[in-house]
Amino acid sequence: MRYAELVKEHAPLIHNITNQVVMNFTANGLYALGASPLMAHEQEEMTDIINIADALVLNIGTITEPVFQAMQVAGKKATEKGIPIVLDPVGVGASDYRMGVVIHLLETLKVSLIRGNAAEIMTLVSRKQAGKGVEGDIETDVVAVARAFYQRYHIPVVVTGKADIIYNGQMLYQLKNGSPVLKQVTGTGCLLTSVIAAFLAVADDEHYIEAATEAVSFYTVASEVAAEKTKLAGSFQVQFIDELAALTVSEWEKRAMIEVMG
Amino acid sequence: MRYAELVKEHAPLIHNITNQVVMNFTANGLYALGASPLMAHEQEEMTDIINIADALVLNIGTITEPVFQAMQVAGKKATEKGIPIVLDPVGVGASDYRMGVVIHLLETLKVSLIRGNAAEIMTLVSRKQAGKGVEGDIETDVVAVARAFYQRYHIPVVVTGKADIIYNGQMLYQLKNGSPVLKQVTGTGCLLTSVIAAFLAVADDEHYIEAATEAVSFYTVASEVAAEKTKLAGSFQVQFIDELAALTVSEWEKRAMIEVMG
Amino acid sequence: MRYAELVKEHAPLIHNITNQVVMNFTANGLYALGASPLMAHEQEEMTDIINIADALVLNIGTITEPVFQAMQVAGKKATEKGIPIVLDPVGVGASDYRMGVVIHLLETLKVSLIRGNAAEIMTLVSRKQAGKGVEGDIETDVVAVARAFYQRYHIPVVVTGKADIIYNGQMLYQLKNGSPVLKQVTGTGCLLTSVIAAFLAVADDEHYIEAATEAVSFYTVASEVAAEKTKLAGSFQVQFIDELAALTVSEWEKRAMIEVMG
Repeated sequence: MRYAELVKEHAPLIHNITNQVVMNFTANGLYALGASPLMAHEQEEMTDIINIADALVLNIGTITEPVFQAMQVAGKKATEKGIPIVLDPVGVGASDYRMGVVIHLLETLKVSLIRGNAAEIMTLVSRKQAGKGVEGDIETDVVAVARAFYQRYHIPVVVTGKADIIYNGQMLYQLKNGSPVLKQVTGTGCLLTSVIAAFLAVADDEHYIEAATEAVSFYTVASEVAAEKTKLAGSFQVQFIDELAALTVSEWEKRAMIEVMG
Repeated sequence: MRYAELVKEHAPLIHNITNQVVMNFTANGLYALGASPLMAHEQEEMTDIINIADALVLNIGTITEPVFQAMQVAGKKATEKGIPIVLDPVGVGASDYRMGVVIHLLETLKVSLIRGNAAEIMTLVSRKQAGKGVEGDIETDVVAVARAFYQRYHIPVVVTGKADIIYNGQMLYQLKNGSPVLKQVTGTGCLLTSVIAAFLAVADDEHYIEAATEAVSFYTVASEVAAEKTKLAGSFQVQFIDELAALTVSEWEKRAMIEVMG
Repeated sequence: MRYAELVKEHAPLIHNITNQVVMNFTANGLYALGASPLMAHEQEEMTDIINIADALVLNIGTITEPVFQAMQVAGKKATEKGIPIVLDPVGVGASDYRMGVVIHLLETLKVSLIRGNAAEIMTLVSRKQAGKGVEGDIETDVVAVARAFYQRYHIPVVVTGKADIIYNGQMLYQLKNGSPVLKQVTGTGCLLTSVIAAFLAVADDEHYIEAATEAVSFYTVASEVAAEKTKLAGSFQVQFIDELAALTVSEWEKRAMIEVMG
């Protein structure tokens, strides 16, 4: 059984401490896949909420001090409980503050996986500001970026871009699906992070790497199907949610381009 | 004249202290019906804002301490002014904190009506955590849930689900319209709460029950019309706003299934 | 070369401290035009972020004390750096608090331009509460409103309404494009403010008035094209983003109705 099917069957509760720009889109994307989204960030209730959650997403897109504190409480509890924690270091190169937040989370929590674009992951490797905003793009050897990140932090990593790289120190996957229109719609990276969390939530922890790979592959294939219908950002945002809901496992399997690079 | 028409005529100003996931969708849904949405939650300005508002929505979906404090100031002023207050206890079973917030609001303010799904309302009756997130669903006797809530709190209640129950201690309505797609789009419950507030804003307080019933009926009929055009969540979210704007009173009356259960 | 083309060429980074209702729509609208949106409001990182930003938007729609403090830090740094600051006094007539916030920003920062509807700008001229919410509309001589605002504050102003007025103390433009459907979709005023910021970001400061005029004109022409396809608010919101991305400079020039009133 595929992880996409397990998500539909178990409807895992994904707790998202995420940014204000993407909350609606993220919730609808998770619903479309059959997961149950939850968004909350009052420190006082984080322990109770993690008690009922199946995975935790930490996304720093519009991070503030109170939300950072909520992340720490939720992350600590999620680490104790052993549910997956997926981190999205949105625009980490934009400020020292963001860098400090991400480093703190990486060092104090059992982060199961991090997902970012090459610029964000590279910034975490070098710990130098990339000097560009949240969508900074670099032409670089993304495989090398993924390896360098793992070497420094020993945390599985998804680097998204023209090709997507997934690496956990042992297995390395390269995925070649995905429409360029994704980059023109805000929150498509953030939603992918939450979708990965939903797939991890229904996987054993020794299979997180396969679950993450299927999540990225399913997601990017859905984006291709959507882009066959519209390439303009407004209607693509709508169509993409539709395709996340409508895409069948067999259609996904037919289109998926997953390369094991070992 | 129907309340839907009065909303269009008077464009009541609905002040929403609501969650970050649904703000955009809520504002657009209220506009579609001809109401004027306002979203704000700085404690310092709550009194001034309630001075110009025609109804107040309190929605705890992403509640934090500062927003809870703003709710208390706004709610106190709205109680004094006598405008309707409609409460949405989103995911109240998810944490003790939420339960405390909702109980406090119920006990200190003159709440005109509460709207929740059966799990949320049941949680408030039993005051025990339901152990599920914001969309927890229970197969239960929803009429009994509505009656039990009223008996405990003496506050009119709308319990939404496969059928919708509206009860104020005297009148009990059962509504059988509504598309199941509503459940796949985030914020459709929250928007309904705000729509109820808009209908109450143009009603005398002794007719809140009829206004609430028309609000729920109009809303769920609009969802059926939308679902005849698309059943996928992305496009449904868009189509539904269109139908809220386009649905005529005569078309609504033709389709409405309202049963008075006494 | 037109400013719309320069935006596509330079992809300026627009930092938006804006309200929670419109963040997603604003980000997607900026992307559609080729700009790079950034949303953040933690005071600690404002200086770093302004260091990489090309323009700053201050929008008080859901202002709170911590966000106001972030605005002050960002605004001070942006003033020092000399990047354009565009202010949107959303619903300034709704509370004394909002009035205080806007006056403070106007008096302490080098605001490049303010954009509001006639009610909002009029409220700032008279400093009396308009007694209506964020969308308060007044039938008034909008040219007189623009002139009165400039006279009091010496800050260039865009007054949007049936016609749009742009005035900087010397040049006065009247623009007659734009669909009335814009008013039925939340955040279309806020997005316009951010779009103006994107156009200013690629202009020399002595040409801000022309850049702002092209921004308003391009935006309102796109709304007309969208409204030719749909007049219902849900689908219009989607279509409008599509048209912002698709509208060519030559199509815009053909339709633009810009009158120099001197």
